[in-house]
Amino acid sequence: MSSNSFGKLFTVTTFGESHGPAIGCVIDGCPPGLAIATEEFRRDLDRRATGRSRHTSQRHEADEVEILSGVYEGRTTGTPIALLIRNTDPRSKDYGDIAQTFRPGHADYTYWQKYGIRDPRGGGRASARETTMRVAAAVVAKKWLAERHGVRVRGHLAQLGDIVPRGFDWEAVEANPFFWPDAGQVAELERAMDALRKCGDSVGARVNAVAEGVPPGWGEPVYGKLDGDLAAGMMSINAVKGVEIGAGFAAVSQRGTQHRDQMHLDGFTSNHAGGILGGISTGQPVSVSVAFKPTSSILVPGDSVNLAGEGVQVVTKGRHDPCVGIRATPIVEAMLALVLMDHALRHRAQCGDVGPMAPRIA
Amino acid sequence: MSSNSFGKLFTVTTFGESHGPAIGCVIDGCPPGLAIATEEFRRDLDRRATGRSRHTSQRHEADEVEILSGVYEGRTTGTPIALLIRNTDPRSKDYGDIAQTFRPGHADYTYWQKYGIRDPRGGGRASARETTMRVAAAVVAKKWLAERHGVRVRGHLAQLGDIVPRGFDWEAVEANPFFWPDAGQVAELERAMDALRKCGDSVGARVNAVAEGVPPGWGEPVYGKLDGDLAAGMMSINAVKGVEIGAGFAAVSQRGTQHRDQMHLDGFTSNHAGGILGGISTGQPVSVSVAFKPTSSILVPGDSVNLAGEGVQVVTKGRHDPCVGIRATPIVEAMLALVLMDHALRHRAQCGDVGPMAPRIA
Amino acid sequence: MSSNSFGKLFTVTTFGESHGPAIGCVIDGCPPGLAIATEEFRRDLDRRATGRSRHTSQRHEADEVEILSGVYEGRTTGTPIALLIRNTDPRSKDYGDIAQTFRPGHADYTYWQKYGIRDPRGGGRASARETTMRVAAAVVAKKWLAERHGVRVRGHLAQLGDIVPRGFDWEAVEANPFFWPDAGQVAELERAMDALRKCGDSVGARVNAVAEGVPPGWGEPVYGKLDGDLAAGMMSINAVKGVEIGAGFAAVSQRGTQHRDQMHLDGFTSNHAGGILGGISTGQPVSVSVAFKPTSSILVPGDSVNLAGEGVQVVTKGRHDPCVGIRATPIVEAMLALVLMDHALRHRAQCGDVGPMAPRIA
Amino acid sequence: MSSNSFGKLFTVTTFGESHGPAIGCVIDGCPPGLAIATEEFRRDLDRRATGRSRHTSQRHEADEVEILSGVYEGRTTGTPIALLIRNTDPRSKDYGDIAQTFRPGHADYTYWQKYGIRDPRGGGRASARETTMRVAAAVVAKKWLAERHGVRVRGHLAQLGDIVPRGFDWEAVEANPFFWPDAGQVAELERAMDALRKCGDSVGARVNAVAEGVPPGWGEPVYGKLDGDLAAGMMSINAVKGVEIGAGFAAVSQRGTQHRDQMHLDGFTSNHAGGILGGISTGQPVSVSVAFKPTSSILVPGDSVNLAGEGVQVVTKGRHDPCVGIRATPIVEAMLALVLMDHALRHRAQCGDVGPMAPRIA
Repeated sequence: MSSNSFGKLFTVTTFGESHGPAIGCVIDGCPPGLAIATEEFRRDLDRRATGRSRHTSQRHEADEVEILSGVYEGRTTGTPIALLIRNTDPRSKDYGDIAQTFRPGHADYTYWQKYGIRDPRGGGRASARETTMRVAAAVVAKKWLAERHGVRVRGHLAQLGDIVPRGFDWEAVEANPFFWPDAGQVAELERAMDALRKCGDSVGARVNAVAEGVPPGWGEPVYGKLDGDLAAGMMSINAVKGVEIGAGFAAVSQRGTQHRDQMHLDGFTSNHAGGILGGISTGQPVSVSVAFKPTSSILVPGDSVNLAGEGVQVVTKGRHDPCVGIRATPIVEAMLALVLMDHALRHRAQCGDVGPMAPRIA
Repeated sequence: MSSNSFGKLFTVTTFGESHGPAIGCVIDGCPPGLAIATEEFRRDLDRRATGRSRHTSQRHEADEVEILSGVYEGRTTGTPIALLIRNTDPRSKDYGDIAQTFRPGHADYTYWQKYGIRDPRGGGRASARETTMRVAAAVVAKKWLAERHGVRVRGHLAQLGDIVPRGFDWEAVEANPFFWPDAGQVAELERAMDALRKCGDSVGARVNAVAEGVPPGWGEPVYGKLDGDLAAGMMSINAVKGVEIGAGFAAVSQRGTQHRDQMHLDGFTSNHAGGILGGISTGQPVSVSVAFKPTSSILVPGDSVNLAGEGVQVVTKGRHDPCVGIRATPIVEAMLALVLMDHALRHRAQCGDVGPMAPRIA
Repeated sequence: MSSNSFGKLFTVTTFGESHGPAIGCVIDGCPPGLAIATEEFRRDLDRRATGRSRHTSQRHEADEVEILSGVYEGRTTGTPIALLIRNTDPRSKDYGDIAQTFRPGHADYTYWQKYGIRDPRGGGRASARETTMRVAAAVVAKKWLAERHGVRVRGHLAQLGDIVPRGFDWEAVEANPFFWPDAGQVAELERAMDALRKCGDSVGARVNAVAEGVPPGWGEPVYGKLDGDLAAGMMSINAVKGVEIGAGFAAVSQRGTQHRDQMHLDGFTSNHAGGILGGISTGQPVSVSVAFKPTSSILVPGDSVNLAGEGVQVVTKGRHDPCVGIRATPIVEAMLALVLMDHALRHRAQCGDVGPMAPRIA
Repeated sequence: MSSNSFGKLFTVTTFGESHGPAIGCVIDGCPPGLAIATEEFRRDLDRRATGRSRHTSQRHEADEVEILSGVYEGRTTGTPIALLIRNTDPRSKDYGDIAQTFRPGHADYTYWQKYGIRDPRGGGRASARETTMRVAAAVVAKKWLAERHGVRVRGHLAQLGDIVPRGFDWEAVEANPFFWPDAGQVAELERAMDALRKCGDSVGARVNAVAEGVPPGWGEPVYGKLDGDLAAGMMSINAVKGVEIGAGFAAVSQRGTQHRDQMHLDGFTSNHAGGILGGISTGQPVSVSVAFKPTSSILVPGDSVNLAGEGVQVVTKGRHDPCVGIRATPIVEAMLALVLMDHALRHRAQCGDVGPMAPRIA
């Protein structure tokens, strides 16, 4: 069904269950000649890794990427690039009784209803472990976008429960385990997380990402819109419940005079559009904001039913991650990069490698 | 590029510009044997029609659907269903000087940058006129979903600028031109619209839609998620800037104990998930909420540039629609129906026409 | 299901039944800026038209193409191009009793088994009438290929029953109603056709097509091979039973020393490969040969069954076309052009608008 | 570009180069609940293996399949099934000087012209090694088709150079290394192969495959025809130059009275259609015939050019396989099974799990 593939021309197909032998992906459509090495995957995979801080679950995954194909003497050849990561720390014993129980807020019940069979070990295919391969595939996309077009993709945590950033500094983002843009609030975030851990509860989060340097003209009418594909990509991330482009839901209360981004040759006066008009990039930064629900696996018991049709109480033991959103930043960045990469190729398919049209807004 | 097609198995391809000879669509993959007649398109097309009230632009489109293929003796045959609507009221003279100017908030500049050519008449392909065909195609989807699975798709306006519904009554929704669920507020909405029209400004809106009766098991991991496709479909509607499933962005501030929908055999205790877990339907109502930006075509002059690279003032003359969102309800419903229809077929492709698994939450 | 669409990036979706209101197509992905006018469709449509000579069935179709979208001021805009042809000569009365009977060699029985319903008028969707839209869409492709890359696509009848060409002259091909490359044999062909008509029988045919000027590098490993897509395209034409690239089935008896096309800088010594190696064009002419079965609608009665499950005798009345292959040349050309067009765009998507690599075989 | 994927609903994506670390595939869309074990891949992989007899090249590949995902406790779960085979015998030293030379009849020159870079080791992605994964994926398809629909897919060598079978016996096919249906001719084939090996030349071959038990109704108009997809699948196999369905090119010389398969309730009188009419299965055996060109890697020197643009003589050293066709039978069977599997799912997507319509030809 190709439902495990993303992208029309830069197509990423992922496979693997959380506690199976391995996870991996196949990237089809990558332009030839791009230099890529195993080491380049490490940084973003480490950023996503679950063991990054005491505020995320303590599973330590080596996440060693093996390039199985598509690269010859350090350069992409144009043929499919297969990436493989062995699951080295399955610990499937932790998940034994889950096989008989549908956990609230998880995909247990829906997978069962769909397939009549499910791999219960660590959430199986529904685990956030799958997103590792998105991040890996996006390393390739980010590099090509940067080298070829000067595009830079970045993200940060924008809300944790009710806490919002007071200041904003890109430097700070990479300097704390929350990807939080205000270094002065990190202690506050840690206290909030500790409190959640103590009471066994969890909280939601908002992640923003932005791509600078995207040339005008990427995206397609009308079902291939850049924002449409971004929405699909973001909503396909585990635990995501909402997606905004530019002003997002704030646009509901805005006036037209306020929302429309007036144009001068030296620039737009604002970017409520989030860098996209009519589904096509304007040349302004492409900005997206994503809502993550609170982790469903919590220590507070919840009501559910089991396979035998009995009412049961479910409680998560062992690993507990009070906010899935705090390690989601690299994943949101990855989806943004994958969508842009795909549209870069789609644009030149239809319109060729043409330069910008005049007049061009700075 | 198939970028004008939506859906994998129930595939709708639309074509046509706002002021060209016609708009139309081709529906590929419709199951055979469904009774469908020309008259059945009228109700939803009328609901979407721009001339519905004095609060929407006064273009009177006949919107007479002609079935060109795929139906024999009143029943679908399984071959592509082509629908055609002639544009009877082009009045392209209204749009003469737009050809030289990029209107702020519109796709003029981005189409130009992408293609180096654009059809300026009424917004061309970027016009909301395209959504007429989504509504038409969804008439077929809604009927099959209702007949085959008892699915009912409904929608309503959920916010107009800062105004939110006080009460909620589905009966009221169809009884006023705003699709507003509280009849007692209609006068207030009319005053708000009149005020906007007077000052030549516009405002955003929120539209909600819900599908009841969706069986559990529709949707696919991991890039074919039901919510992922809903997000793509909604974000592909003109002027949409945000999409939420279930709790949406409210989930950011929620606790896990609050968000997770606990399960009992006689039902879920809540529906923060919006009827979808792990990308697959739970059997609860599938609910989506969509943000529309304020109309960009307003009477207040705005700064822009023209083709010659000069700074200009842009002002919309003639038709003025202070809120595009108030006629968007049928379009949001349509996208919800199209996504569900597609997933109904995708589900039985992979899993067959199986009945529900036990245990099933009521 | 998109089963009525052809091409990944230059996507042609056709619709319409033989005796319904109209047939048409939507071309999605056409590059912008191509000049195209209604008149340009006439030549190839006339070449394909059934009333071309007394040797084809006498239905006179006006085949007036209307451009419904995607063209502004005579140039393609990059948005979908919809083409429409009204069916002006339905005469559905001719086909009355066919509704109850499955004609041997036709799709009557298989459509019935698949769908449980079928449009019996003139073969419905299974009619060769559908190929009209392939020819129309290919007019656009041929023009772009010619303008942009100097590609020239031509075809001819290469066998009629047991008759094969003695001489070969491209000039002759367009000068006789058979697309036959030896003018001296036309009288022989006419006698053969008259004899068939007299005895109410039919015969098969072979059509060859060739594309000159295709640059090396078009086509993709491994399921997107140029020859793989050509095979799919050709086999999708009504009545086709076989496809060959280059040497085709003759390669079975060839030795490696004989088949391999040796390479020198001033050219290949032969073209048994048919211009394709590893699924990718070599720069030599791309050549394909296609087998058409004899027309199934003949005047000689044949055994069959009817809807009631009774044995019946079927005989075609009225129109009788002793060889469908003799008007197939424009259709084979069309599919060749559509595949090349698609791959031209796919190539630049992945590899960009790069010039030829050195060394290049002349 | 998804050009390394095959199938719309039972989608197989392959990756890997002949002498890279591994080859593999991802099967997306497999129905859940199918029992599948590692051992089940062995039989067909062994049938395809290059070391099967002294008549094929002497590379000994272990071809141990590892199931990486999509199977839980021995049953498919509905999620992607990834299969991996490590390349254990690379011997890339054999291929050293090939990097600088374009071998005639190989994809060396075309990959270079397309990508500007190529993996020369063993043919890289263009190697027939890729077909291993088609055979592996088809093991899953064959099993489901057999269990669910009683479909049986078989194939055999039908011509070797000028030698054609005198008798036909399915038992014989599996009892000799040529998949030849007449045991009495095996010595003759061995002599022919020995003679070719002695003179360093090669020869082409024809492979036939047939699927029995296919129900009527599989396949789709008009670009999703069963025969269209078969043609694409077969032509995508390395070295294939021609594809026939049913009578194939023999239909060119046939009369309509001869070709059409008359219908009686107790069966068709013949099967010139090859089990497909209008692109949809008739219920008769689906039969396909495929032409393989002679191996291009031969010991007789041939003219070519090198990267520096100089004329050179190319000669294959080491492994020499005088006829690639003799181990192609399992690959042709595999593609037939994959296409049928895909259409089985496509059929039930659109038409549901319905039983046969009456009347049904036996």
